[in-house]
This record gives sequence, C-alpha cells and structure tokens, in this order.
Amino acid sequence: MKPQEFVNLKYKPKSSDLICLFRVEPNRVPMKKAAATVALESSVGTWTNLELTKTAEKLMAKVFEIKGNWIKIAYPQELFEEGNAPNILSSIAGNIFGMKAVKNLRLEDVSFPKKILSGFMGPKFGIEGIRKMLKIRDRPLIGTIIKPKLGLNPYEHAKSAYESWLGGCDLVKADENLAGQKFNEFEERLARTLEYCNKAEEKTGMKKGYIENVTAETKEMMKRAQLVEDLGGKYIMIDFLTAGFSSLQTLREADFKLAIHCHRALHAAMTRNPKHGISMMVLADFARLIGVDQLHVGTGVGKLEGNLSDIEELIEEIEDKKIKSTKKRLVQDWEKIKPVLAVSSGGLCPLDIPKLVKNFGNDLIMQFGGGIHSHPNGTGAGARAAKQALNATIKGINLKKYAKTHAELRLAIEKWG
Amino acid sequence: MKPQEFVNLKYKPKSSDLICLFRVEPNRVPMKKAAATVALESSVGTWTNLELTKTAEKLMAKVFEIKGNWIKIAYPQELFEEGNAPNILSSIAGNIFGMKAVKNLRLEDVSFPKKILSGFMGPKFGIEGIRKMLKIRDRPLIGTIIKPKLGLNPYEHAKSAYESWLGGCDLVKADENLAGQKFNEFEERLARTLEYCNKAEEKTGMKKGYIENVTAETKEMMKRAQLVEDLGGKYIMIDFLTAGFSSLQTLREADFKLAIHCHRALHAAMTRNPKHGISMMVLADFARLIGVDQLHVGTGVGKLEGNLSDIEELIEEIEDKKIKSTKKRLVQDWEKIKPVLAVSSGGLCPLDIPKLVKNFGNDLIMQFGGGIHSHPNGTGAGARAAKQALNATIKGINLKKYAKTHAELRLAIEKWG
Repeated sequence: MKPQEFVNLKYKPKSSDLICLFRVEPNRVPMKKAAATVALESSVGTWTNLELTKTAEKLMAKVFEIKGNWIKIAYPQELFEEGNAPNILSSIAGNIFGMKAVKNLRLEDVSFPKKILSGFMGPKFGIEGIRKMLKIRDRPLIGTIIKPKLGLNPYEHAKSAYESWLGGCDLVKADENLAGQKFNEFEERLARTLEYCNKAEEKTGMKKGYIENVTAETKEMMKRAQLVEDLGGKYIMIDFLTAGFSSLQTLREADFKLAIHCHRALHAAMTRNPKHGISMMVLADFARLIGVDQLHVGTGVGKLEGNLSDIEELIEEIEDKKIKSTKKRLVQDWEKIKPVLAVSSGGLCPLDIPKLVKNFGNDLIMQFGGGIHSHPNGTGAGARAAKQALNATIKGINLKKYAKTHAELRLAIEKWG
Repeated sequence: MKPQEFVNLKYKPKSSDLICLFRVEPNRVPMKKAAATVALESSVGTWTNLELTKTAEKLMAKVFEIKGNWIKIAYPQELFEEGNAPNILSSIAGNIFGMKAVKNLRLEDVSFPKKILSGFMGPKFGIEGIRKMLKIRDRPLIGTIIKPKLGLNPYEHAKSAYESWLGGCDLVKADENLAGQKFNEFEERLARTLEYCNKAEEKTGMKKGYIENVTAETKEMMKRAQLVEDLGGKYIMIDFLTAGFSSLQTLREADFKLAIHCHRALHAAMTRNPKHGISMMVLADFARLIGVDQLHVGTGVGKLEGNLSDIEELIEEIEDKKIKSTKKRLVQDWEKIKPVLAVSSGGLCPLDIPKLVKNFGNDLIMQFGGGIHSHPNGTGAGARAAKQALNATIKGINLKKYAKTHAELRLAIEKWG
C-alpha cells in the first residue's frame, strides 16, 4: 500500500459508496499527497507503508476528484458498521483534522448511500408529522425560549410559558442551559409547564407545544424523556453536540411518542472557520440521519454569525428529499428519511419575521427569546407582537402599516425598530 | 441587566466559582463589550436588555480579568446541574462560539470548584490502578494498535495481537475505526482476542491488556462493555468525541470492572486552530472529570500536529493532583479525582521512544501501529524492536549501540532511521 494508491481520478463512484467533500490546504506537500493522506488515514492506511490484506484493499477509500482545494473521496460502505453513527464519524471526521500533511481541512459535506440510510431511523414526525400534531397546515410556526434562561423557578417558568401561548406562540422551549438545576428542578418545571400547556390549549382552542430540555447523561435523559411522554408532552429537546451522537441515537431509537427538537450549542467551535473543521451541513446530515424532527439552522440576522446562502442550502439539505450538488454540497437522495423542520433562533425579534419568511419559506419555526420576553409590556404582549408580525407577513402587509392598528407590534417597532 | 454589568474587574472569584479562561478577538466592538457578551450569553443574559429575577442576578457570570486577548470569567456553581457534563458545556462552550461580537473565541481552560468535582466519579483506576492491574511499577508502557486497522478478520486480528504481546507489548488496542463491521464482527473478535490474551499471559508470565473499542449507540455500547467484562477483559475503549459526553458519562457510571481507554478522534476539528474553538486541555478536563483512565494526548513527533509544550502542560493537567496556572492554564486542585494515564499515539515508531520518555516521563503509554506491524520482519519483530528500544532507554544506552546486539531494533533503524 502506497499513499498514491488512494488517489484514482478515473474512479467512478458506485451508488454504494459514501462520498465526502473536503476542502484541503496542504502543508508543505503537493495537493495530491495531502489528499491521499486524508483518504488513507480515514480508511485503511497509516503513515508508513503496510501490507494490506485482500479485504483491506477492497476497503480503500479513493480520492476521485481534485478541483483546486476541493476534493471528493469515495468510501466503500462496508468500511462502516451499519447503524453506528460515531463509527462513521471516527473515520471521516477523525484523526484527519490533526494530520501534519494538511494545514487546514474542512469536511464540507457527506452523501450517504441507500444502505447506510437504512441503518438509521430518521425523523419520527418530520415536517408533515409536526404540522399534523400541531394542526398548523400552511404557515411558519412561532416559538419562544423562556427568558431569563436561568433564574426562574418552575412556577415562574410555567406562567411565562402560559402567557407566551396565550399571546400566540405555538411552541415554548426551555433554554439549552436549563436542565435540572436546584432553583428550577426538572420534574416540577415539566409538570407545571405541561399543566399550563393544557390550559392554554383549552383557552385558545389551538394546539400548543412545550419543548423540554432533557439533555443529560443518557440514562437520566431517557428517564426525563419517559416522564415527558407519561405526562402527555409532545416534545423533547436535546443539545446534540454537547450530549453527543451516541446518546442522540439512543434517544431516537427509544422511539418515544415525542418529537425531537435539536439544539446545536458548541457547533460554531467546529463550523465557524471556513477553512477548518466540520460544516454545519455535515452535522445536520447526521442529525437528520439519526432522526431529529426540528433543527436549529441559523438566522442570517440577529446575534449569531452565519451567511444567508449557507443557511438556505442547509435548509434545503434537511427539508428536501432530493438534494442537488453545489460548490459546497453533494447530491443526496434521502429516500425514506423524512424531512426535518428548520428552526431559526438567536437574537431575533418580531421585526425580523418578514425577512425570515422571505428567506427561508413557510416550513420554518421562528423562535424569539428576549425578542418576546423583553417587550415593553412583557411576555404576553411580546407574543402578540410576534403573532401580529406573522399575520401581517402572511397577508403581505408592511409591519409599520399593520402596527397602526396593533399596539403590541407598534411598541416592538419602537423598541427594536 | 445591561451587558457592562457582566464585567467586574474588582471581583474576587469565590472558591465555589467555576472559572473559564478564554482567548477573545472582538469583532468590531471594544474588548470589554465582547467579553461581556461572552459572559452574558454563557450565563443568564441575552442580546437585548431583560429584567432579571433576583435568582437570575445571583447567577450572573462575571468577567473579572482582561489581559490583552485573554479573559477570565467566574460562573457561580449553581448555574449548572450537578453531575451533568453536557449541561456545563452547553453554557461555557455553547452558542458563544457563534456570536457576532467575537471574530474568534477559544475556550482555553476550565477550573472546576470542589462541589462540581464531587458530582462526577473521575477515573476508576487512574495511573496507580492501571499499574497495579498490569503489575508494571515503574516504567512506561508499550502498546500497539492492530494494523491494517480495517480489513483483518477476527482470527487474523487475534493472531496479530498475540504476536504483539509475545514480542513485548503490554497493551493491544483495536483501532478507533473498528467497531462491529461485517468483516470483523465484535463478539467474535473480542472472544478470540481475549483467548489469545490469556495465552500470552500464560506464555510470558506477564499481565497483558486488550483494549476493545465499544464506541456505538449507548445501549449497544453498554452491551459490548458488559461482554468484555463477562469474558474477563481488562479494558474498554471509547472514542469520546464522536460518541459524546452523555454516553461517556453513562459508560463510566455503569462502573464496569474495566479500565476506560479514551481515544479522541475529531478533537482537532475543534482544537487545532489556536484562535478559535476549544482547547484539548478543556476536552481532557471533562474526560478526567467524568472518569477515563487513559487518554490520548499527542506525540510531539509523528504524523499528527501538536506543540511539545502544549502536550507537556496537558499531561500535567491529567496526571497531577494540583495544577499550577500558566498563560494558557488555570489553577486546579483535582481533590479526589484520580490521575489519568497519558497515551502517546499517532505515527510513532520504536525509534521515537527515547524522545517520548525524555519529554513525557514514565507515566506514559507509547502506542505504535504501523511502527510495529510494518517492521520488515512483521508484527512480532516490531514488538520486540519496541521493547528493545524501551529497555535501551531505561538503561540509558544509545539505540544505535543497543541495536548492535539486537537484530529487530537494528532492522527498525534501517527502515525508519
């Protein structure tokens, strides 16, 4: 086995290959050598020439395209254990980021063959299932994250949720930092908030969802998810990168009658540098594969960085069935894996709604934290302002005009306009 | 709540505070503003002014030091749920990496207060326990990773392990890419390799360890770990970043009578950029806190990048009880949390042994993959060459001199010298 044997630019990838798109900056070696090093380290090779068995030879990854800094590698699907997400990542997103042969390396996209897809469950609900559960056919959803994120007691938390629902929110989410801290213990918070969720449904005649954060050590997480199901909840939330792919799989495979909302804290430690790390596209691919129903994708406005066209491509990747290739994206047919509903969240206020809907379409959850709870007249008014902004957007009416007859929206414009 | 209230340069951190050291590059805002944004987002604040409850006010993080690009933040321990590693990370290593207020942000170190330490088990064995189990008092350990990493069947794998042990390896490790693939199924491989481990112990009269990779979805991982225990194994291995912190905690808390070897595939996607992401120091802190017994730390030579002084500091961080502060490191008293044995692995060959021992000391596992199995005379000879190089190093004899009377080492020098 010699490094150059891992490059074959005449190779036509098979439909059974897993394909990766990398951006490579070689480190004092020619591009072809750096590309070969990535392919060998992430499949069957190592740093020194080594005799391969016949089985190992069949498992060699092949660099089949090099265009500038962009390379594509084909991995035989037999390299990976079926249904083992960490195993796939340990190869295609493992040691290679630390190789001396590369100065920078970014895994931009991954395309799964049919057989690998079939080893995973994918979303239980998907976009259609969520819409059916909440009886919201054809409009974007409005959610809120309870703020301040830490420091409310269970009763204050539940009351804030109630006001949000009455004001017009479809969904209320616990913050990703909120778990089972002493000042707001899990069971008490969950029970009280679900009580208020039922009240809000009765009072409004609409379906309302409470997204409780169950992120913890796996067994504890499963207990918490079971409790949500037992108490008649609709949703659980996992922070999939701080919890990890192994426990995300466990949570999904338990097949609770609950939709999974997926937060992505920590992602930008890996995804932000355009030259090095792992793209959000890849992380989202694994989230869809394993099976979350809703995933944070960014905003294009607000407090978090994130380029608009990247977010648009990301939303297509999780919401469409057949994905077309672009510079940074590979073809993917998701087969039976359902679509994931995109969540826009982070520094948003009601005034952002027209832009968000224009950019990201109807299959979207828009979440407001401070943008609802710090409304001059409080949470209920903040929720009404968001609902008014959504109604105006749906009707194609300019927010300022709509605000003339809608006081909460007017106050929101005064504060954030 | 105003952003500037999250900065208090007169604040003296309490012994009950969790401290973080960040490197911050502000993005078109003054340093103080960027620092405040990190502190507020990672504790109780958000992007817009928000009224805080009294409890929330007590939970505010405080920037208490700013020196150039380096800032220190104190977090009241009540912010976090006891014994919930993902919960801590979702705050101190969460959304903040994606904030527009920073151009680059790196979490360099974390220092845990006593109460947070007491919520976790730490290593079961630690350095002393490992040495006792293997009856190796006072020398570095030699390990090998079976190569080719993928493509051997269970019988070939077990035979290669056997030759490695007979040649002088203390430890044999499955590659992090090897799980339960069809060509080398988990149970069969484990059973056969443990049989050969027993044989090797009988034949050599020494203790030998087989480190089996159990990385998978949590429940499957627990089954695999149970099987290792049932079959009398000594070790399991987890790839802690591709599996995740939640399942690492689950594995540790199951308290198997097994040492946990911790591989770190994917780390360099987060750790390599000195300006942005999460340092290996922080990842290692969480690995020690949760409780792994052995952890990959780098080599300073070989195929992987990594600066020597960083690795030395990292080894102190996981192997010492009381950690002194340096530019990139915070004070830490590990209290009852045992030390973790450092593992040097990645592109090493026997010729690196004198340098590794000189740099990293005696409490060290040196692992060779290709550096043993691609020895001109095969695996057994490669293991003997490594053992000879270790013996020479312990006796203070130059390798070239020692090779005059040791054929395997001589051949290793001819190949890699």
